[in-house]
Amino acid sequence: MGTPRATVIVTGTEVLGGWVSDRNGPWLARQLGALGVEHVSTVTVGDRPADLRAALEHARDQGYELIVTSGGLGPTEDDLTAATVAEFAGRPAALDEALEGRIWAILEPLSKRWKQISQEAIRSANRKQAMVPAGATVLEPVGTAPGLIVPPTDDDPSRPPTPTVVVMPGPPSELKPMWKTAEQQPAFRAAISEAVTLRESTWRLFGLPESEIANTMKSAREVGIPIDDLEITTCVHRGELEVVTRWTPEADAVASAFEEFVGDQHAETLFSTDGRRIDEIVLDLLREREWTIATAESCTGGLVAGRLTDRAGASDVVVGGIVSYSNAVKMRVLGVDAEDLRDHGAVSAIVAQQMAQGALNRLGAKIAVSTTGIAGPGGGSDAKPVGTVYVAVETVDGLSLVRHVQMPGDRAAVRDRTVTAALHMVRRVLLGEGERI
Amino acid sequence: MGTPRATVIVTGTEVLGGWVSDRNGPWLARQLGALGVEHVSTVTVGDRPADLRAALEHARDQGYELIVTSGGLGPTEDDLTAATVAEFAGRPAALDEALEGRIWAILEPLSKRWKQISQEAIRSANRKQAMVPAGATVLEPVGTAPGLIVPPTDDDPSRPPTPTVVVMPGPPSELKPMWKTAEQQPAFRAAISEAVTLRESTWRLFGLPESEIANTMKSAREVGIPIDDLEITTCVHRGELEVVTRWTPEADAVASAFEEFVGDQHAETLFSTDGRRIDEIVLDLLREREWTIATAESCTGGLVAGRLTDRAGASDVVVGGIVSYSNAVKMRVLGVDAEDLRDHGAVSAIVAQQMAQGALNRLGAKIAVSTTGIAGPGGGSDAKPVGTVYVAVETVDGLSLVRHVQMPGDRAAVRDRTVTAALHMVRRVLLGEGERI
Repeated sequence: MGTPRATVIVTGTEVLGGWVSDRNGPWLARQLGALGVEHVSTVTVGDRPADLRAALEHARDQGYELIVTSGGLGPTEDDLTAATVAEFAGRPAALDEALEGRIWAILEPLSKRWKQISQEAIRSANRKQAMVPAGATVLEPVGTAPGLIVPPTDDDPSRPPTPTVVVMPGPPSELKPMWKTAEQQPAFRAAISEAVTLRESTWRLFGLPESEIANTMKSAREVGIPIDDLEITTCVHRGELEVVTRWTPEADAVASAFEEFVGDQHAETLFSTDGRRIDEIVLDLLREREWTIATAESCTGGLVAGRLTDRAGASDVVVGGIVSYSNAVKMRVLGVDAEDLRDHGAVSAIVAQQMAQGALNRLGAKIAVSTTGIAGPGGGSDAKPVGTVYVAVETVDGLSLVRHVQMPGDRAAVRDRTVTAALHMVRRVLLGEGERI
Repeated sequence: MGTPRATVIVTGTEVLGGWVSDRNGPWLARQLGALGVEHVSTVTVGDRPADLRAALEHARDQGYELIVTSGGLGPTEDDLTAATVAEFAGRPAALDEALEGRIWAILEPLSKRWKQISQEAIRSANRKQAMVPAGATVLEPVGTAPGLIVPPTDDDPSRPPTPTVVVMPGPPSELKPMWKTAEQQPAFRAAISEAVTLRESTWRLFGLPESEIANTMKSAREVGIPIDDLEITTCVHRGELEVVTRWTPEADAVASAFEEFVGDQHAETLFSTDGRRIDEIVLDLLREREWTIATAESCTGGLVAGRLTDRAGASDVVVGGIVSYSNAVKMRVLGVDAEDLRDHGAVSAIVAQQMAQGALNRLGAKIAVSTTGIAGPGGGSDAKPVGTVYVAVETVDGLSLVRHVQMPGDRAAVRDRTVTAALHMVRRVLLGEGERI
């Protein structure tokens, strides 16, 4: 049967309607890929059994080996995934009393808080969650709902067998750990027995257009690297180009040759080959050096500091920042020169440098980064159109780097890309780039 | 045939694989809902014609009236949506020379930048994009790719007719305006002729658990409001509860009665009935009063200032902020008292108040908001577990409000909810709440 194929079915009216964005589909896509399963599609349906059933039948008729569902395992009337899957697989569900007891042990302490819900209603919900289709493997609850692995059924010669169905809860915090358990189960391994686990690497490049990597792939082919043995996906995320490569163990040498080739061609822009993102790299460089950082932000309005403090433990190296949205704050708090502001404007190299210098002095950090620019949609001019941005980095030991960048996109994109550009400038200076002043 | 049903098919290996999150599916869901079309499912497939074809056929076999595709209209080899849809509908595509010329007029100036691509390759891509299935309506390019409305085909009595297919480009900035054009076309109107346009309202409540609104719906039913005539969706987004109600014109009175009922029951927590979000409401209140705002942030690390400056024109009212991640910055820049820091800790009501007062004084604003808390995962204690947050608001005319909140969730959730809580505190003070000091 070759590489097993899978579809992910996400249930939930709130996801279908766009009120909540789905995080399970993309996460499961990565997991399936890593297991060597071909992920063909992700289908989102509302909380209606008929629509879920249609999606299940479509996957069966396409001959897929695996279906993963997320959501619809809760206690309320809407939550019908387990019953729908049991019916689809032709496997009648029966009460698992031991499981009912284990769920009750979780629910009982919680139920005391739910004053408005009757004990009877809770008991009935509990019972529903403990109904197990014949032959299914139970995955113990992470929250209150158990998951299921329902094996294939081949009882009707007029149609393909039903695929193995892995039934998962909707909350990502429950789904992720339960998936890791599911992966280990014999019923799951049986469904993907033909899969060859792929190896994967993620490289990140900054400042390289997506079209350039297409050229690099062409050149690699021309010099005789059989890159068609690799599965290469590229995408631009927050102004960075991410290249994900997957390959079977037999193509190890091809993957190494391609990695070396990309490294040679793009030494200037390749900044990560171990999966780390730029904020993590900057924090690591600061820690190695035992340095602290401060920010001075205008157009990014606090988002550079926000990104630097996203990760736990940032307080070791981030002292703080100043958001100088108004010129008054630029002068008063950061000490930007009034004449320079008047002569060069707030969006200028000299003001960016003085902002970074101000943050360095006022906040007592070893390195500081500043941003000033026109995020739009208003405020642009012929000389300084929307997207004009200056980023400066200054250090206590006198390194200085300032850059003008013209950012494409709307207000949110200009702000977001400026944050990324600022972190990359910090990295460059931490690696020794910049002028001595 | 009743309410027309639709499926959205999103194409793109990068979306399927989770490298890029899909913004078109949720947006189209809202548009279809507003047109009175029942949106049954959203299917994401990679850039493989066979998988797209299977999704198209499934929608046909389910008897849907409308399919909307997004993506796969670009110039490269991967971009095969238009050809696949033409084949599916049994409508051979022919070159539209006038359209080819119009696309060339867009491409020619751009092509001069693409030095590495041959003119011939560009011409061939151009030709591909100008192939129009027989009988289809062309939607003029917003970027470089035209869209299509392909009418139903009913040429095979053994299966249902093919639905109307609206073929849209992938980039949201192209899709959104093109959709608005598509909605007006006779071929589109014909597909949804049975739809009854729904009315819609969005209310937002802060500080109300989702289960409470379920109780309110139950109570409304008990007092005789026939709320089953309304379609009500609730979801929690960034710590706020969003209630979207849709109804047919005949249910106008029911919608008004329900709105009044919710307003009575939840006057304390209902803060928006006109679709505005909290950041917009705060900026509007500041503008009305001609006041300026400043921030002093610890655990949110700049994200409150970031949210306040998300919208264009924020510079009218936002002067700036101070990210005081370290205690040194809290003391040195914001003037927080060293003894209070030592006696009460950085995460305390008194430090929050001094931080806000410091921002007010140092940055020269009329109102200031501060945040200090333990975002985790480390740093918690029995007395102050992870999620302990203090928010304070101070004004130049002596109003003061400080609150302790215990935030649930992980680091990102604690930070995000603290931002929301801070903006709500500002709104309350701008509406007169708080103590005179």
